[in-house]
Amino acid sequence: MFSLDGIKIILVEPVGPLNVGSVARVMKNMGLSQLVLVSPQCDPLGEEARRMAVHGVELLEQAQQVPSLAIALQGCHRAIATTARSRSLETPLETPRQALPWLIQPSLTTALIFGREDRGLSNDELNQAHRFVGIPANPDYTSLNLAQSVAICAYELSQAQDQPDQQVTLPVDRLNLATSEQLEGYYQHLERNLLTIGVLYPHTAHARMEKLRRLYQRAQLTSEEVALLRGILGQVDWLWQQLPASHSLSQKPTP
Amino acid sequence: MFSLDGIKIILVEPVGPLNVGSVARVMKNMGLSQLVLVSPQCDPLGEEARRMAVHGVELLEQAQQVPSLAIALQGCHRAIATTARSRSLETPLETPRQALPWLIQPSLTTALIFGREDRGLSNDELNQAHRFVGIPANPDYTSLNLAQSVAICAYELSQAQDQPDQQVTLPVDRLNLATSEQLEGYYQHLERNLLTIGVLYPHTAHARMEKLRRLYQRAQLTSEEVALLRGILGQVDWLWQQLPASHSLSQKPTP
Repeated sequence: MFSLDGIKIILVEPVGPLNVGSVARVMKNMGLSQLVLVSPQCDPLGEEARRMAVHGVELLEQAQQVPSLAIALQGCHRAIATTARSRSLETPLETPRQALPWLIQPSLTTALIFGREDRGLSNDELNQAHRFVGIPANPDYTSLNLAQSVAICAYELSQAQDQPDQQVTLPVDRLNLATSEQLEGYYQHLERNLLTIGVLYPHTAHARMEKLRRLYQRAQLTSEEVALLRGILGQVDWLWQQLPASHSLSQKPTP
Repeated sequence: MFSLDGIKIILVEPVGPLNVGSVARVMKNMGLSQLVLVSPQCDPLGEEARRMAVHGVELLEQAQQVPSLAIALQGCHRAIATTARSRSLETPLETPRQALPWLIQPSLTTALIFGREDRGLSNDELNQAHRFVGIPANPDYTSLNLAQSVAICAYELSQAQDQPDQQVTLPVDRLNLATSEQLEGYYQHLERNLLTIGVLYPHTAHARMEKLRRLYQRAQLTSEEVALLRGILGQVDWLWQQLPASHSLSQKPTP
């Protein structure tokens, strides 16, 4: 059961204390230990949550509470988001069985993200993940209960750990993957830079940055690659500063 | 989703209305439609169950309520029981992934049985199943919530239906399998007969009959085979009746 210890289960703004308690219980059943709650909208240590957690109550007591998904993902090398939507994503939805083994890497910190009970994850939140999982369901009723979704994914993780030969591996330098905050720092630097030099405009920046994020997330950047990309941005910043202040944006050349 | 329609999900004496409601929801999510409640110890149509069922509430309204597992299994050709215990079973526990595809047979009525929240299924109830499934769990905490167990098994059924090539098939005449009540009728006849002719004694009958049941359950009897076995028993009954009434049990030969 050791190899699931590095996997964080992140619940974004959960509303139902019964759900949070049930999640803690099934995590303990399946050998997961790290629960992270992003701005919980209920009391995760109240009577209802404890009652459902039963012997998983220690996970509630040790759960980390943070104000945003970005903070929850600090230090993570790989993140998978669960979603019922595929329309707004350019990256295709994968099944739990296809994607979740990718989180089982003893040398990495990884995360599995679950959205709000009523409306899941926002696009900005989805953009912070590398891969997207949808639990296959009856087209007549695709919306699963939050705790049931966690149960199914935790079970798949537990099953995958017993069959390491089925793990999906990507041809990247896995020991040196960039962390979420390294990537986030790069994306923010890139957006500032592209706005400054006039590649992006405020009204198009959001949509364009989503496409750029997807591209880099798919690429599975290493820390070195992020440093390289940021070096390029720094150089462009420097060039911009060399131009006379009297230059208007439209007159300045784009790199 | 058609091929899961023949599978009954049977809950034996469920106590928690939240559990029963959650089960209905995840059944609908996964394309299952037949819920059977054996002596429910809560109101499956009350406010709590309905709240958790959400759009699965029609399954609660259509759920069959019966007084015993034997009645719930009437007409079933294959039954799998879920249990956390392996010690008391001579038949080994299988994982959901190994065993559950066996329930997906459009020409058969099949059942998946879940026990009470606190103590599962009795030995007598387990004896009515053909195969036994345990959800692999952390040895530190193996007891899953009832609704979570159903969620995981329903998900496995749903996954198996999409991958029919992985289905386990046994080399038996599947179109003519004996039903549960045919088997039960045979077991009861066999026990009466063996007690009468002195093979069994009241204090040993229960344990011996368990072994015999296991043997026949493993064999996957057809209706014809049950008729054949009952023909043999009938003949033994007749022989017994031919003996002078003055014969004591110890003097009568056993067949």
